[in-house]
Amino acid sequence: MAPCGEKSQEVISSIAIIIAMQTEALPLVNRFELKEDEESVFPEGVPWIRYHGTYKDLQINIIWPGKDATLGVDSVGTVSASLATYATIQALKPDLIINAGTAGGFKSKGASIGDVFLISDVAFHDRRIPIPVFDLYGVGLRPAFSTPNLLKELNLKVGKLSTGDSLDMSPQDETSIIANDAAVKDMEGAAVAYVANLLKVPAIFVKAVTDIVDGDKPTAEEFMQNLVAVTAALDQAVTQVLHFINGKSLSEL
Amino acid sequence: MAPCGEKSQEVISSIAIIIAMQTEALPLVNRFELKEDEESVFPEGVPWIRYHGTYKDLQINIIWPGKDATLGVDSVGTVSASLATYATIQALKPDLIINAGTAGGFKSKGASIGDVFLISDVAFHDRRIPIPVFDLYGVGLRPAFSTPNLLKELNLKVGKLSTGDSLDMSPQDETSIIANDAAVKDMEGAAVAYVANLLKVPAIFVKAVTDIVDGDKPTAEEFMQNLVAVTAALDQAVTQVLHFINGKSLSEL
Repeated sequence: MAPCGEKSQEVISSIAIIIAMQTEALPLVNRFELKEDEESVFPEGVPWIRYHGTYKDLQINIIWPGKDATLGVDSVGTVSASLATYATIQALKPDLIINAGTAGGFKSKGASIGDVFLISDVAFHDRRIPIPVFDLYGVGLRPAFSTPNLLKELNLKVGKLSTGDSLDMSPQDETSIIANDAAVKDMEGAAVAYVANLLKVPAIFVKAVTDIVDGDKPTAEEFMQNLVAVTAALDQAVTQVLHFINGKSLSEL
Repeated sequence: MAPCGEKSQEVISSIAIIIAMQTEALPLVNRFELKEDEESVFPEGVPWIRYHGTYKDLQINIIWPGKDATLGVDSVGTVSASLATYATIQALKPDLIINAGTAGGFKSKGASIGDVFLISDVAFHDRRIPIPVFDLYGVGLRPAFSTPNLLKELNLKVGKLSTGDSLDMSPQDETSIIANDAAVKDMEGAAVAYVANLLKVPAIFVKAVTDIVDGDKPTAEEFMQNLVAVTAALDQAVTQVLHFINGKSLSEL
């Protein structure tokens, strides 16, 4: 999506980073010495947590959808991510959304454990609606905000992201992921993109590979094994992205 | 979920009916002579439409997530439904949410075309996260608000609802739907329940069967064939529900 004319020339001042898991968020919270809100910017009852602070000329907000009140696990997936993104845009009106997190990678598309991808396009792989036009709505293909200079500067891989609410991959998911030409799969990206697009906020996606989906090991096991280590790679990449963004306008990214 | 003590004794004054498709919504809009908002209660850019009016002592709001701005089809599925439910609760603070719509039915659970179900419990069938506790979060089982008197009064079937973002059913979906013990499947209910539960608004679910999932005909074809006719049954059932609710408190339902 293209930012509107005027805004694209202004220096970016406020960024919201949507991160689904606390383990993924905390290294960045610590590195940038962000503080958790004492009074939430969100309505009573929702588990969403904002950490905020400044880095050089940027107001940084990390939004983590928090822990499920009943079960105590991170509120992963498209419903929580879309709600938190919506409420974040309403409350903070950020200039740019960054959805950062871990993802499964496809070795057939050049992904290895620890790789960090800057995403070119996002789509869903578990919304099959076999009625003309509804099928396209289900897939929900959207380009990420284009950042050619950021890409040139940083040593990141580029690829397409496919999103679904399952950690595993069914044969039907696989067919859709191949149709989406995805190098990585996650559980939030396309939902964040949908909401950002609705509310006309540019969004980029930084995804670090914790497990190889088309490899030998079971995803859940490999994901848990690599989560902490890969989070360090994600932390480093997001830091580089913020360093590059500082002082620039959207049109310079 | 139980409504909080005081509120459960007050007469219900405001209802929000979340309906995913315009074809499902319009018979009710016409029957209750509801008016579309001239100025939206929702933020600029979102396609969500509110129709509102009064019926006896009830303020009735029908919220339809609207048409996708790019593709022109109804904004079906869990992401749109959860966002519209969230924004509706924020804007209107209804006493009760009713999620009404069409659904696929399982003849093995006693469902026939045109049946209307009042839902006892909702869960997701396409959020497989095979990590302890995350698995339960993915399934997201929640009871509907309990309405024993409504049920006694109305001639509706009772059953469990399973929600997923696909109109079709993969073998993995089927396994989860069986585990959820569902009589009907839809594309929104469990997401509406999740948001209503977060924000502590009681929610009930009225679902009319357009197609038999475990029958001979392809779902998409049967769905399109029966959509308009079954919508009339849905319209009638929701009207009966509103008629019963009028003048009563939550604890009398």
